[in-house]
Amino acid sequence: MSAREAGLPEVVASGELPSEVTIWEVGARDGLQNESNVVPVGVKLEFLDRMASSGLSVLEATSFVHPKWVPQLADAAELLAGLEQRPGVSYPVLVPNERGLDRALEAGVTHIAIFASATETFASRNLNRTLDSQFEMFEPVVSRARAEGLDVRGYVSMCFGDPWEGAVPREQVVAVGRRLLDMGCSQLSLGDTIGVATPGQVEALLDAFGDVSSLAVHFHDTYGQALSNTLAALRRGVTTVDSSAGGLGGCPYAESATGNLATEDLVWMLDGLGVKHGVDLDQLVATSAWMAEQLGRPSPSRVVRALT
Amino acid sequence: MSAREAGLPEVVASGELPSEVTIWEVGARDGLQNESNVVPVGVKLEFLDRMASSGLSVLEATSFVHPKWVPQLADAAELLAGLEQRPGVSYPVLVPNERGLDRALEAGVTHIAIFASATETFASRNLNRTLDSQFEMFEPVVSRARAEGLDVRGYVSMCFGDPWEGAVPREQVVAVGRRLLDMGCSQLSLGDTIGVATPGQVEALLDAFGDVSSLAVHFHDTYGQALSNTLAALRRGVTTVDSSAGGLGGCPYAESATGNLATEDLVWMLDGLGVKHGVDLDQLVATSAWMAEQLGRPSPSRVVRALT
Repeated sequence: MSAREAGLPEVVASGELPSEVTIWEVGARDGLQNESNVVPVGVKLEFLDRMASSGLSVLEATSFVHPKWVPQLADAAELLAGLEQRPGVSYPVLVPNERGLDRALEAGVTHIAIFASATETFASRNLNRTLDSQFEMFEPVVSRARAEGLDVRGYVSMCFGDPWEGAVPREQVVAVGRRLLDMGCSQLSLGDTIGVATPGQVEALLDAFGDVSSLAVHFHDTYGQALSNTLAALRRGVTTVDSSAGGLGGCPYAESATGNLATEDLVWMLDGLGVKHGVDLDQLVATSAWMAEQLGRPSPSRVVRALT
Repeated sequence: MSAREAGLPEVVASGELPSEVTIWEVGARDGLQNESNVVPVGVKLEFLDRMASSGLSVLEATSFVHPKWVPQLADAAELLAGLEQRPGVSYPVLVPNERGLDRALEAGVTHIAIFASATETFASRNLNRTLDSQFEMFEPVVSRARAEGLDVRGYVSMCFGDPWEGAVPREQVVAVGRRLLDMGCSQLSLGDTIGVATPGQVEALLDAFGDVSSLAVHFHDTYGQALSNTLAALRRGVTTVDSSAGGLGGCPYAESATGNLATEDLVWMLDGLGVKHGVDLDQLVATSAWMAEQLGRPSPSRVVRALT
């Protein structure tokens, strides 16, 4: 069934939303990185190409994190070598440190992302750093990348709650974000890594930053809150939203466990609100349905399930 | 894992929301009615009792629709005879016509709901009536019920889209709703029966009604939009929200297909926003997990999945 046959939403605006949103598609990186069965590089390339063909203009392609930590993305160099980049499409890659940057530069990457923590505990567990010393690791990465003419995005994880620390002080998130911007990041992606946030938190954090022009949002749907939180962020003027085709990114051990906000569910809402995004929903649904077949389990996206 | 251990959201208000919301729990009726395997009446009674124990104060208990159409609810009289009503809890039942009202009155029901259509095609298919002549069927039901001192809710289905007609004119929905109110309904439940709506539509329909004090909203999560639409309705001042424990109500033939907005996902958002509702989330999650076991398939509620 096509989205139109299903009754693709009547377009009714809802005051004070951006007229256009950039969808930062993370399916190929954040979506796949937790998959235990390694996806062949050819499948990943087809996935990226089909997503580009559906109209997505930013495709986070892979990560140069050490293969020991993320075996799924050990093929980053091979993937980028085989990637036929489409004009008008950006293919950023995640880079954890200087060694990762070296590999990214060798691969001809022009847009990178770094991954910072908003909390002490996650900095320690994920980066083996203190909250403060993580910046020593990022500084040479960002300065060298900028010197080479690369664009740098800064992920800030655990912005709305931390499994060990609970609530995260907003001023701490803002301080981490500002240091990344001061360092040379052109955009921050504020992540609700464990999916606990609700709309009031989102508004309060965006208000604490003040200027939202360099801010993107990255919600996980663990508790079903991702789309409502996105709506709250759009109302505050955010124009870049991270999402994952088919909602990829859940825990691979739980059937249909949920991870990132599904791009299709986001697109459905944006279509209904008349917010432009450039994506052909039916093509993307077909792509995610195909990818779900490759992975051998159903997509957690509501839209993908309803239309396939 | 309890909701608190999971990082139950930090409470941050989001301006201009109601301070308190009544959750109209439809799991036992709308949630179960499409289940092909008949659930034993004892299980239904335990389900209702556990939901009441979790703090839900309105439990739509069953329907007096003809058993030929909804075999799952053929035990309506037996269920009501066995129901130990808790003080402070309301147990409305759906009544399609005068025969249903007779049966409801025999069973001692004090709160009924009728089920109207906002579109010509659904009136024809679901009620075997025209849009206009459905009121001839409802009029004696409502007037007799009111004369007997019963409270009457009017469901208005297909308010935001109809699978045969597409977009539904808002003035048509308002006209249907106003006739039900004029007839003596104390509340309307505006239903997105096929789950296609987006927030702008919700706001526009509520604005078309003007006064929202007699309005409830009833969203299905087919395209993942139910919670965002609910948030939009809350921002317009709606204080009664329909939802279904565990998200019951999907198509029983598709594993984890989605139906009604899951009560748990709603409660998570309301907790985060500091909107009172009276429900103990952990108790409700345990109830829905137990019910999912009875039905032999996982709950589509994100919160239930994450916490169990």
